[in-house]
Amino acid sequence: MDDDAFPRSIDERERRAWFGLVSTITLLPAALESQLQRESGVSLYEFRVMAALLMQPDHTLQLKDLASVTDGSLSRLSHVVTRLGRRGWVRRYSERTGRATQARLTDRGRQKVVETAPGHIAEVRRLVFDVLSAEQVGALEEITGRINTAIGAQSGSSRTS
Amino acid sequence: MDDDAFPRSIDERERRAWFGLVSTITLLPAALESQLQRESGVSLYEFRVMAALLMQPDHTLQLKDLASVTDGSLSRLSHVVTRLGRRGWVRRYSERTGRATQARLTDRGRQKVVETAPGHIAEVRRLVFDVLSAEQVGALEEITGRINTAIGAQSGSSRTS
Repeated sequence: MDDDAFPRSIDERERRAWFGLVSTITLLPAALESQLQRESGVSLYEFRVMAALLMQPDHTLQLKDLASVTDGSLSRLSHVVTRLGRRGWVRRYSERTGRATQARLTDRGRQKVVETAPGHIAEVRRLVFDVLSAEQVGALEEITGRINTAIGAQSGSSRTS
Repeated sequence: MDDDAFPRSIDERERRAWFGLVSTITLLPAALESQLQRESGVSLYEFRVMAALLMQPDHTLQLKDLASVTDGSLSRLSHVVTRLGRRGWVRRYSERTGRATQARLTDRGRQKVVETAPGHIAEVRRLVFDVLSAEQVGALEEITGRINTAIGAQSGSSRTS
């Protein structure tokens, strides 16, 4: 009898990699969330939404594209846009009746991202890039690209944060 | 003026790796959660707690150690143990008054993990190991190990799932 939740079909090497990865996908979001909430009062997803808008030429994106580049469902994104709207950072509008809904970063929203980014980036650097070699950074890009494709993520040069 | 939430201090290569990683830590937990809920009616964290107990010699662990190996806070773990207790899968007890609280997997809990594991493992294989080379699996173990250490994860051979 094998008292093991990972019998067969995953070998020892994969098992060790899996335990590492499952810890990272649990601990890293929590650590990033914690820094952002503590220092800037925003969630990781709220920050990603605003950062994605900031990187657009006119700080504007259709809601469905914004959901896609932030890896969120349209309903999650819509909820967060409403919340960011109440804080005066994002404005939701349609060009004309019947056109797709857009979200635009306001000037105050732009200022909020710019103020928030340095602390977030410092945490990303401390937890990820300071501890990896250049070769590992390359491997990480390739590995996460393959996993994200398998999950069915949208990909391409329009990805933001 | 640089309309960019990632100015300086993160180079282009790190930036691409970061966009990949932040998508993975968003999408992978959601995908795993979805399979587990849909096919077995348990959360990823509930599964990890029960799998961790299953791998112990007597299916028993102190709550604080169980929290550590599952990357959860003691309060989150305690809450989940209560919920699993209501479903008859885990029993919480103390050896004697004043002793540390333990959690033990019941026979029904053991059966639940054994029934749940194959579908979960198939999803892990599909989304991760089927798309990575052996070399990338090795790199993934090393990379996640370094990130987890930077975050301050407990580590060691007692890690479970």
